[in-house]
Amino acid sequence: RCHHRTMDMLDVPFLPFCAFLGMLGLLCVAMVGTWCQHWRGGFSLDGSSRTFNWHPVLMVTGLVVLYGAAALVYRIPNTWSGPKLPWKVLHGSLALGAFILTVLGLAAVFSFHNSQGTPNMYSLHSWMGLGTVLLFSCQWAAGFGAFLLPWAPAWLRALYKPIHVFFGSTILMLSVASCVSGINEKLFFSLKNGTTAYKLLPAEAVFANTLGLLILIFGVLVVGALARPSWKRPDSNSPDSRQ
Amino acid sequence: RCHHRTMDMLDVPFLPFCAFLGMLGLLCVAMVGTWCQHWRGGFSLDGSSRTFNWHPVLMVTGLVVLYGAAALVYRIPNTWSGPKLPWKVLHGSLALGAFILTVLGLAAVFSFHNSQGTPNMYSLHSWMGLGTVLLFSCQWAAGFGAFLLPWAPAWLRALYKPIHVFFGSTILMLSVASCVSGINEKLFFSLKNGTTAYKLLPAEAVFANTLGLLILIFGVLVVGALARPSWKRPDSNSPDSRQ
Repeated sequence: RCHHRTMDMLDVPFLPFCAFLGMLGLLCVAMVGTWCQHWRGGFSLDGSSRTFNWHPVLMVTGLVVLYGAAALVYRIPNTWSGPKLPWKVLHGSLALGAFILTVLGLAAVFSFHNSQGTPNMYSLHSWMGLGTVLLFSCQWAAGFGAFLLPWAPAWLRALYKPIHVFFGSTILMLSVASCVSGINEKLFFSLKNGTTAYKLLPAEAVFANTLGLLILIFGVLVVGALARPSWKRPDSNSPDSRQ
Repeated sequence: RCHHRTMDMLDVPFLPFCAFLGMLGLLCVAMVGTWCQHWRGGFSLDGSSRTFNWHPVLMVTGLVVLYGAAALVYRIPNTWSGPKLPWKVLHGSLALGAFILTVLGLAAVFSFHNSQGTPNMYSLHSWMGLGTVLLFSCQWAAGFGAFLLPWAPAWLRALYKPIHVFFGSTILMLSVASCVSGINEKLFFSLKNGTTAYKLLPAEAVFANTLGLLILIFGVLVVGALARPSWKRPDSNSPDSRQ
């Protein structure tokens, strides 16, 4: 029928969409690296602003791009049949990799602040960012305990699963909001004087603003892909199929 | 069965949840007003920073709280039976109210910048915020044209509806991210010297950081409520019921 044909026009296939997302994620990682290398002095471990530079790179790579990849594992149609355990291990491993990069990203900013005598944890960016990381650590530990360790009873898994799914998208939204507020803040800190003042929109400001918009688009597309009913793993235990 | 009982524990009723959301939204509006009145010098229309103060108040009230109320109209179970037109009109009117406050909020910041000789549209906050408002204006106009004007054919409504729903949640996420980056930026601008430096976390910083976190929680709860399958309006045209 005509109605079905028009709906089919919106049925983007998952794998090409995923390839596009992968390229967008890699572009974000490349751009945050380029920003820090080209305009912010590069990377080191000496406690200077070059130590700080690891912070945006590790956060965008871990808490946004790798996290997004981990979140999308169960949307790959290949995971819908056969044993689930290997995919669980992949999902948990990608999330663990994202978490390790995130903790290193926190270590970079704390070590920079401490060596400069700057207080930690005063800005809204820092409150939101640390809250996001704490939620992520609870999410990983609870997911590991409920879904990978063998002792969790079926009712506990069924109870916790929608909570895990909800926080999965929520943490990504909070990560993205943390990234954009952090990029905004860093540009105000760094671009103050003369012809490179932020308000004169020098090349660095255009580049990093564009990076912020691309991170937003990446996050919106991943959260949208996670919410799309026809891309969800068919699962009789899922509350989505109880309708 | 045991499985159903554990799932029922997660079935929060919509209306008490909505009352809680309403109180949280009012708290955000009260707090942004208090921040601007008590710490930022209050309100005026003279082009000074007291004109700017309308910007956060109008954006939080319009683009977050009133927008959230508009988005949730079809989740009220009373709207699921009887004629749909009155609810469409309510949804469109609340969204129009939100849009008008948003445009006034933009006017406040442009008028402040222009009277101070500050450039407009350089920060990531401004790019993201203006992008959000432009998306919102397209969303309102397309929704009005497709769902309220009588000429749109059924196939066009069916095609556009999931797009409208997707952008409904997306615009709210972008609004919230714009608000938190704006609060963060404003605190760095305002709290620079002496004992009120942002990094010393004076009372204003704690208050406005808390406001930012409450706005985040409001946005996450609204987007979560919109995504919840059991709270969606049963509708044979909806792609969610095609599963």
